[in-house]
Amino acid sequence: MKVIETNIDDMSGEFLGFLMELLLQHNALDVWYTPIYMKKNRPGVKVSVLCHPQDQEKLEDILLRETTTLGVRSYSAFRKTLQRQWIKVSTRYGYIRIKVAYGDGVFKAAPEYEDCRLASRTYGVSLREIYDEAMQEFSKLDIKLKVLESNV
Amino acid sequence: MKVIETNIDDMSGEFLGFLMELLLQHNALDVWYTPIYMKKNRPGVKVSVLCHPQDQEKLEDILLRETTTLGVRSYSAFRKTLQRQWIKVSTRYGYIRIKVAYGDGVFKAAPEYEDCRLASRTYGVSLREIYDEAMQEFSKLDIKLKVLESNV
Amino acid sequence: MKVIETNIDDMSGEFLGFLMELLLQHNALDVWYTPIYMKKNRPGVKVSVLCHPQDQEKLEDILLRETTTLGVRSYSAFRKTLQRQWIKVSTRYGYIRIKVAYGDGVFKAAPEYEDCRLASRTYGVSLREIYDEAMQEFSKLDIKLKVLESNV
Amino acid sequence: MKVIETNIDDMSGEFLGFLMELLLQHNALDVWYTPIYMKKNRPGVKVSVLCHPQDQEKLEDILLRETTTLGVRSYSAFRKTLQRQWIKVSTRYGYIRIKVAYGDGVFKAAPEYEDCRLASRTYGVSLREIYDEAMQEFSKLDIKLKVLESNV
Amino acid sequence: MKVIETNIDDMSGEFLGFLMELLLQHNALDVWYTPIYMKKNRPGVKVSVLCHPQDQEKLEDILLRETTTLGVRSYSAFRKTLQRQWIKVSTRYGYIRIKVAYGDGVFKAAPEYEDCRLASRTYGVSLREIYDEAMQEFSKLDIKLKVLESNV
Amino acid sequence: MKVIETNIDDMSGEFLGFLMELLLQHNALDVWYTPIYMKKNRPGVKVSVLCHPQDQEKLEDILLRETTTLGVRSYSAFRKTLQRQWIKVSTRYGYIRIKVAYGDGVFKAAPEYEDCRLASRTYGVSLREIYDEAMQEFSKLDIKLKVLESNV
Repeated sequence: MKVIETNIDDMSGEFLGFLMELLLQHNALDVWYTPIYMKKNRPGVKVSVLCHPQDQEKLEDILLRETTTLGVRSYSAFRKTLQRQWIKVSTRYGYIRIKVAYGDGVFKAAPEYEDCRLASRTYGVSLREIYDEAMQEFSKLDIKLKVLESNV
Repeated sequence: MKVIETNIDDMSGEFLGFLMELLLQHNALDVWYTPIYMKKNRPGVKVSVLCHPQDQEKLEDILLRETTTLGVRSYSAFRKTLQRQWIKVSTRYGYIRIKVAYGDGVFKAAPEYEDCRLASRTYGVSLREIYDEAMQEFSKLDIKLKVLESNV
Repeated sequence: MKVIETNIDDMSGEFLGFLMELLLQHNALDVWYTPIYMKKNRPGVKVSVLCHPQDQEKLEDILLRETTTLGVRSYSAFRKTLQRQWIKVSTRYGYIRIKVAYGDGVFKAAPEYEDCRLASRTYGVSLREIYDEAMQEFSKLDIKLKVLESNV
Repeated sequence: MKVIETNIDDMSGEFLGFLMELLLQHNALDVWYTPIYMKKNRPGVKVSVLCHPQDQEKLEDILLRETTTLGVRSYSAFRKTLQRQWIKVSTRYGYIRIKVAYGDGVFKAAPEYEDCRLASRTYGVSLREIYDEAMQEFSKLDIKLKVLESNV
Repeated sequence: MKVIETNIDDMSGEFLGFLMELLLQHNALDVWYTPIYMKKNRPGVKVSVLCHPQDQEKLEDILLRETTTLGVRSYSAFRKTLQRQWIKVSTRYGYIRIKVAYGDGVFKAAPEYEDCRLASRTYGVSLREIYDEAMQEFSKLDIKLKVLESNV
Repeated sequence: MKVIETNIDDMSGEFLGFLMELLLQHNALDVWYTPIYMKKNRPGVKVSVLCHPQDQEKLEDILLRETTTLGVRSYSAFRKTLQRQWIKVSTRYGYIRIKVAYGDGVFKAAPEYEDCRLASRTYGVSLREIYDEAMQEFSKLDIKLKVLESNV
């Protein structure tokens, strides 16, 4: 995994909002901004991009082309991840995907945000209720046991 | 006291550094920036200015003229302050002013930053040592007792 | 103008992203989040909403219903704004609206973000270039002089 | 309600951690810190205290005595809150209190953090599981309906 | 030394406060949270843990189990530290330990926070006064000279 | 390139403002501060320094000597930079240097902040106007084409 970073103090928030969208569309695994204090009393932003090594050059080029920066720095990071799987549950507000993550005795599940957001908009029900109903349906499936067993 | 505020997401840190200087030169009592999250994934900055009512209009004009903002908001705040006095102490690194603040049984003293900074630069001694020596000299003066007595 | 605020330490970023969208759709003039340090080592977020008095109750209800908060606080702020006008300019990348703001001898102009963003996507040209071309076209119109004159 | 605020740039985080504890013990309803950018490239902290009017003077005195500040500012805020009630549920990990909040058609419930924290420590079970079990037990009580009905 | 990091946008501040406690109890040398801007307008938090290589696996497991994250990243850092020693001084408020750090011509000393905090609570004296008295007592011991000499 | 970092929770903003100045004078390529949440409810600051390997030791010594930290950590980063060149343009407000950066098909230009700041102060014209005029003069030179050609 690579982490690419650059500090920006001469570019407005408007452009940075646009940049995040662009980086994510070009295979960045994650993009995040950190508010930082830079010299001459300048509120700045540190742009961080996490990516696969094969995407590093392309993403660095976007940073050099679309921002005001004169240089980017990068370093390698080792990444440990859980396995993931998607399970669809049926709710009063339509199908919602549940993101299941597991490995090393860990098991976690959470409803997919975009599905919940859409259902919340369509049915005029609060996001919280959609989440809760989706998780309740999911708990009926008893997936946890099966996943952990099949990983023994 | 007035607090004037405006949110900025379309102006760079470079310009904001310049703006702080400008506002302080035009009688702002204090100026500070807060990193904020604005719509469309934009890292923004909230500019806050504390001032006397008679300076409000002038400072609002600077904000409207020197920033990209289309509007500023303001509200009144009540301010409770300690009394202040400056006392000069002699140190191995020259005179250093001590800022003394008192009132309601409170007594506080701290060396003046700019004096210490200058001494640190001139003598190549760390800022910490200048502070410590200035406070040590100050403590010999036994000002605390006198100030609190004279305020009975 | 009213500013409504509430501190949140028991709700995730995912929900807060959704909330911002919702508040803006219900007439909030501006919504912004400030990272804050809360008790028990909790990273929290202060939610701030700027609105017209007639929208205050509706927006407070959304905050009470869609967040975990048990209470919201509000205060009045006075707002000073520039006058605004939209002027369309023709560029190689289609029409771009220019947001013009003026009043009290101030005159400012900036391209509309959404127009530029769309053009950037459509033509594969960097956002910066769209902005620059739009402003160049705008400067040929000599609007500044006319606006300031008509405001004499 | 009163909001008291002061900006600090000459006091360390260590002291600010202590201060938060102190203010909460003297009836502050809420205390939070905001990272801010102050003049001369200083990372500062804005201290905010929410309190009842009758506690304002005492809390301002603490701020003036225990911090380096030379002045504090305050303003009034109007507060709209939900009604609250505590309901105890029995779980495999002992009793957990559920904080219920309601009013104007809103109904919310969440386990009390300190109870869950204690149970998590005592039973070596993750905080998440304690929360989930407590809420599951709570949902069996069907409180929501009754509360909303009794508020008609 | 290892630095482990993960970005969180789907977990509340309440849980993060609990997590910090947990990580420190399992040998993390330091734990800190950074407010970050994540995609879809989400205020997020970057969790950072500094640890010895032998504790990395255990701490990563805690992160994967107790947070919502699906993956953690880590990188190696080289660490340069001063030597440390504890010296007890007697004050009007009981014994206070002084943390002494030295090496390469550097000598620093500061009172131990927990001792001062306890004394401040017990005697109802401000934290500042405890610190100052402890340092004054320490300065009488003339430790600095001896430490620097013995390191020649 | 080296990145040196240390977390500070027992030093005030005043000293950190001074430190930034000092590090930049001793060849740090960049210095920035990040607000972080540390244990025991302490608002802290992460100090980051980017430097050439040959300056690492000297800068680490400054950090150990001028801050309260007991240790600093560092890691290597790879840096990719654009080529830079300075071009002077003549404006109604005197000469302004334009910083030109290019490489790999990228070409960027921006006025030098310090020149614009000085002109803004001398002529009482807003920083924005100085920037705009400088860039307008620069665009007449048609440098872009030439630079890109000579890099073919």
